[in-house]
Amino acid sequence: MESADGRKYYVGVDLGGTNIKAGLVGRDAGILVKQSIPTEAERGPDHILKRICHLVRDVVEEAAIPAELIGGLGLGAPGTLEIATGVVRYPPNLPGWRNVPIIEYVSRETGFRSVLENDANAAAYAEYWVGAAKGASSIVMLTLGTGIGGGIIIDGSLVHGNTDSAGELGHIIVEIDGRECPCGNRGCLERYASANAVVARFNEAVRSGARSQLAEEAESGRVTAKMVFEAAVAGDDLANRIFWETGTYLGIGIVDLLHTLNPARVVLAGGLIGAGDLLMRPVRETVEKRALPDAQRDLVICFATLGEDAGLIGAAGCALAAFETSR
Amino acid sequence: MESADGRKYYVGVDLGGTNIKAGLVGRDAGILVKQSIPTEAERGPDHILKRICHLVRDVVEEAAIPAELIGGLGLGAPGTLEIATGVVRYPPNLPGWRNVPIIEYVSRETGFRSVLENDANAAAYAEYWVGAAKGASSIVMLTLGTGIGGGIIIDGSLVHGNTDSAGELGHIIVEIDGRECPCGNRGCLERYASANAVVARFNEAVRSGARSQLAEEAESGRVTAKMVFEAAVAGDDLANRIFWETGTYLGIGIVDLLHTLNPARVVLAGGLIGAGDLLMRPVRETVEKRALPDAQRDLVICFATLGEDAGLIGAAGCALAAFETSR
Repeated sequence: MESADGRKYYVGVDLGGTNIKAGLVGRDAGILVKQSIPTEAERGPDHILKRICHLVRDVVEEAAIPAELIGGLGLGAPGTLEIATGVVRYPPNLPGWRNVPIIEYVSRETGFRSVLENDANAAAYAEYWVGAAKGASSIVMLTLGTGIGGGIIIDGSLVHGNTDSAGELGHIIVEIDGRECPCGNRGCLERYASANAVVARFNEAVRSGARSQLAEEAESGRVTAKMVFEAAVAGDDLANRIFWETGTYLGIGIVDLLHTLNPARVVLAGGLIGAGDLLMRPVRETVEKRALPDAQRDLVICFATLGEDAGLIGAAGCALAAFETSR
Repeated sequence: MESADGRKYYVGVDLGGTNIKAGLVGRDAGILVKQSIPTEAERGPDHILKRICHLVRDVVEEAAIPAELIGGLGLGAPGTLEIATGVVRYPPNLPGWRNVPIIEYVSRETGFRSVLENDANAAAYAEYWVGAAKGASSIVMLTLGTGIGGGIIIDGSLVHGNTDSAGELGHIIVEIDGRECPCGNRGCLERYASANAVVARFNEAVRSGARSQLAEEAESGRVTAKMVFEAAVAGDDLANRIFWETGTYLGIGIVDLLHTLNPARVVLAGGLIGAGDLLMRPVRETVEKRALPDAQRDLVICFATLGEDAGLIGAAGCALAAFETSR
């Protein structure tokens, strides 16, 4: 497969607080080459910008693809962005960053036309392009990790919103007077259905006297979401209850999204989906019980399939969508 | 203003459970002529289809505009629709209707190319086209009447969803274990922030012993939302509390919509907006307190300006958008 101007590949970059990943991605979304390096976030924006460009050059060199076959570069970044101008405004997990014109820098240094995208949006775009939501025209993706990120695609286009703040799905309110969120609000979905929320609610339940085989670890603050999952599989009542509640809250958030957007597919991604049916069963039960029949007709709720590569595949896909003249 | 093919006018029809309205609308959204007749819903679909076509002919005749200057017809209808095929599936307030191919009938009988739209969507489109949301590229509209209807426009296009069920904003969940809704769910926004909900919650409060100057009327079931409003203006504590809660719940629903779609404008429409600041103050306070700063940056929350005409103007606008070759 080749574009009208003969360019066959796009660079995808996934800038995270811990690692920077980059890959060379074909027009069929196949990854030709990929590499990952630590972000070294503590060394500030200038250092990281240099590392990104260095990594991009390394990836292109490893692939031994001439630059004229590369159609552009897509960069997924965290935090608040200005998509149109390519500026990273203030990413919470990149200290010292404030209004960094990342696209101007990267395109100048690498020589590739470049486009910026929110990291959760890029991952959603990848699942829409070649992953769990392939073939669906409208999707909502929820990434359940430390917090909850979101990406929305309607009729094939990512929804950015008026100030590039659409898809903040972790801050849908599921309990009107619920748990405090660092965002300043109460009852946000990510206080109930992120990996961190599973641990926090588990620890609280133990402190309130609930029995569990993980009680000792909970009291000393050593529990992870994976441990709660394993305890649930081993038959621990409290762990099972926490996962049931997690999926129920997630289901409530999904019901709100169905009634708002009526997407064809809802994709769940992020570390917490390792819990599989333990998460999916209460999600499905809640949606079946609480969503309008028409809003769940022909709906598929599923897990993401691209895993850790979704970010860089999607970033490359966004570049392809932005620059591909034949589309 | 004239289109490329010289057609200058569009017919807009607003089919409601009580009245059918039709008008001839210019490309500048001005209403040349409009008429309204009772729906006579109890007489079933065949009768109503005939009435619609009769009304359309009357309107065109009154305007004395030759048919070749009319670019098409847009019809806003309630309930569940199949937009692409022009079928009204099962409108709750039109007894006996089930899968009525209304567009096929109307276009055959009137001779105009015709397009179907959900009534709440049509009204939202009108406010976007020439009303309170003119100039905004993405809007959410909430129509606060007997229930709550919704319309969403992103980048100038109405969001229909996968099964034409997007914008069911009255069924966003604002209280996870809240009031029962006829839809089968609990805690739906329309149980808290519709005109009917104001009355229901007011009556309940009186039955639970709350004092009010309207206590007697409440006990005999004669209270309307307008009466609660007037009592609030006259200083009635209970009436004021009910409106404050109504606006707060509406604010919670709006926060969810901001975090999902980050629209430029949120437009409130329907009978309840007659309450003015009594409604808007708690809405704004809730949004300011509970929405992420970026999601409320450059946001305008305002009342609709087109009133009862929004439905037919918007239906005509949808026809223009669908058939206008120069756009």
